[in-house]
Amino acid sequence: MKESVREELSARGHSRRSFGRAAALLTAGASLPFYNEFALAQRAARVEPPADAVRISSNENPLGPSEKALEAIYAVAKNGGRYGAADTRAYVQLASSLDGVKPNYVTPYAGSSDPLYRSTVAFTSPERSFVMGDPGYEAGARAAEFIGAKVHRVPLRKDFSHDVQAMVKADPNAGIIYICNPNNPTGTMTSRADIEYVIANKPKGSILLLDEAYIHFSADAPGTDYVAQDKDVIVLRTFSKLYGMAGIRAGLAIGRPDLLAKLNNFGAGMLPVTGTAAALASLQEKDLIEKRRGINKNIREDLFSWMHKKGYKFVPSESCKFMLETGRPGREVWEGMMAKGVMIGRTWPAWPTHVRVSIGTQEEMNKFKAAIATVMG
Amino acid sequence: MKESVREELSARGHSRRSFGRAAALLTAGASLPFYNEFALAQRAARVEPPADAVRISSNENPLGPSEKALEAIYAVAKNGGRYGAADTRAYVQLASSLDGVKPNYVTPYAGSSDPLYRSTVAFTSPERSFVMGDPGYEAGARAAEFIGAKVHRVPLRKDFSHDVQAMVKADPNAGIIYICNPNNPTGTMTSRADIEYVIANKPKGSILLLDEAYIHFSADAPGTDYVAQDKDVIVLRTFSKLYGMAGIRAGLAIGRPDLLAKLNNFGAGMLPVTGTAAALASLQEKDLIEKRRGINKNIREDLFSWMHKKGYKFVPSESCKFMLETGRPGREVWEGMMAKGVMIGRTWPAWPTHVRVSIGTQEEMNKFKAAIATVMG
Repeated sequence: MKESVREELSARGHSRRSFGRAAALLTAGASLPFYNEFALAQRAARVEPPADAVRISSNENPLGPSEKALEAIYAVAKNGGRYGAADTRAYVQLASSLDGVKPNYVTPYAGSSDPLYRSTVAFTSPERSFVMGDPGYEAGARAAEFIGAKVHRVPLRKDFSHDVQAMVKADPNAGIIYICNPNNPTGTMTSRADIEYVIANKPKGSILLLDEAYIHFSADAPGTDYVAQDKDVIVLRTFSKLYGMAGIRAGLAIGRPDLLAKLNNFGAGMLPVTGTAAALASLQEKDLIEKRRGINKNIREDLFSWMHKKGYKFVPSESCKFMLETGRPGREVWEGMMAKGVMIGRTWPAWPTHVRVSIGTQEEMNKFKAAIATVMG
Repeated sequence: MKESVREELSARGHSRRSFGRAAALLTAGASLPFYNEFALAQRAARVEPPADAVRISSNENPLGPSEKALEAIYAVAKNGGRYGAADTRAYVQLASSLDGVKPNYVTPYAGSSDPLYRSTVAFTSPERSFVMGDPGYEAGARAAEFIGAKVHRVPLRKDFSHDVQAMVKADPNAGIIYICNPNNPTGTMTSRADIEYVIANKPKGSILLLDEAYIHFSADAPGTDYVAQDKDVIVLRTFSKLYGMAGIRAGLAIGRPDLLAKLNNFGAGMLPVTGTAAALASLQEKDLIEKRRGINKNIREDLFSWMHKKGYKFVPSESCKFMLETGRPGREVWEGMMAKGVMIGRTWPAWPTHVRVSIGTQEEMNKFKAAIATVMG
């Protein structure tokens, strides 16, 4: 059905009317699967991993929710018969003050995939494209293609930052310039100067969609000050990564109220009180980001130094995942690792000989080392 | 913005093209608030209740999640760093077998509001209307009006069941015939014969959207056997009511796979693992429905017998809420009750002198009795 939508649109050209037709066709029966890290990892895997496999495929945090977050979940769950909005207000209030924006600049969601989809549906169309780095995180592009929007994949620079000059020039009718910072899958940063270049030079009517799902792993400053300055920027945040709450579900969209309003064409839904309470408790733990960033960094640097000694090529990352150059089709290495009980991440079409590896616990990465040493030979 | 969408549509008439225009306008900036029981109750209240108020306004279950559900939440939360799909499969598997349908006839959602919105967007349009009973639950109608679909409100019969003959005749181009069973706000049942009448006589291309959010409070059979027979029926379920999980978030849409596919134009999202685990544990508790239905019934019958003695007029209900005739504008009684620390439910435009009251604990209903006796005078 997705193909027929695209054919229909292509046959009619990207006129204003074709958007309506796309909407009608979609309503008539097409279905967009939900793509998040987990779904993409599972899809790429094609097989079900054994229960005891080391899972370093979906950028999950094996530490799980913090102790305080767990206590908050336990405390709120018994009152779970109530819808509970008080905590949501406290959560939005604290999150907005930590990021230096007004509370009405923050909309809470059950993760960041939902506002990523909503932003894409709101700001792209057959006439307004989606521009992203390559390799980059795929979910937004999938949603854009589903509604008939063109996706421009602009290769990362040699230093693996986003090529912002090429991105803003990719399409004068772009609807979204999407930057994941640090990038997924490479874990590399795009500088504030580059982000400011996008804000100053992006096509008229477009927004910068700044996906900061992994920002807490980097010591660099986030981009919410641009939101505070009322720029055309929406920042996405999730508690799925550093905060270890992928299954608990909490996230945020941070942007000007008029931009955020466009995300809620179909109703924003409701966060679970467990997610809200755990997110609030996590934000209240002042040293949590630094502590967890340090744990991740230590394990990552130990691994990078080991791989360096082994002569492996990889992309230095400031995040909870990195790209390993395997020198052959990535899928072969994936299968070799899976046979040894280690489920690593997927390969991107732009980099077919790389595989993405998430940073697990030290113990998990020790198993990774043992397995990869054999598989790489 | 909502108004301008409607004006635009009205100016153009309900042509096929106007749907596209509606979609374009919506994408251009309109925002649909999320209306669920809680949001509607809060909106109607207009004021913030004191923290110690008796809350019998949103059809919440004061019992909260069952002990087993809480244990499941505690057990899964510490692994909340993982996305966790295994439990979702087990949940869908068990839910489908309990309702006698195949697993691919069930889509899990974080509650039933999400699939209610999605069904409305998928099956109504400026050309295909939304038909419901009056008074009835408003959320679907709000979503329909937002996208420019006409809403036909058909008065309930004198016995407070849905007037199915009038409903199927309301509009030959209806997209959805919506029946909440037992009805919200009246708590009254519509018979299987009536539901079968809708299925046999509804307009071509329409679906019966059977909202069974409260079905567990009634001893009557649910309508999922019609789904098993591949009828044009989508059944909605939630764990927010009898199961006491309004804040935990879990629900289901049950329907033919081709109908369910149309609900996912924007991606179906992801359930919190706490919601999935608690829902699974609740379904595994064989006596839970009967036990909680009994608790609700005892408290309700005690109250009804007290009200009967007092000479109050009310609609006999088979659910966790009922409509009380106050003999004057419902809002006045609402305010009188609020002044006594009891937050009751809202009034429907069709029945301006009724207020809806949710069944709380025995202690809460004792406070209700004391307060209402004074307010009713």
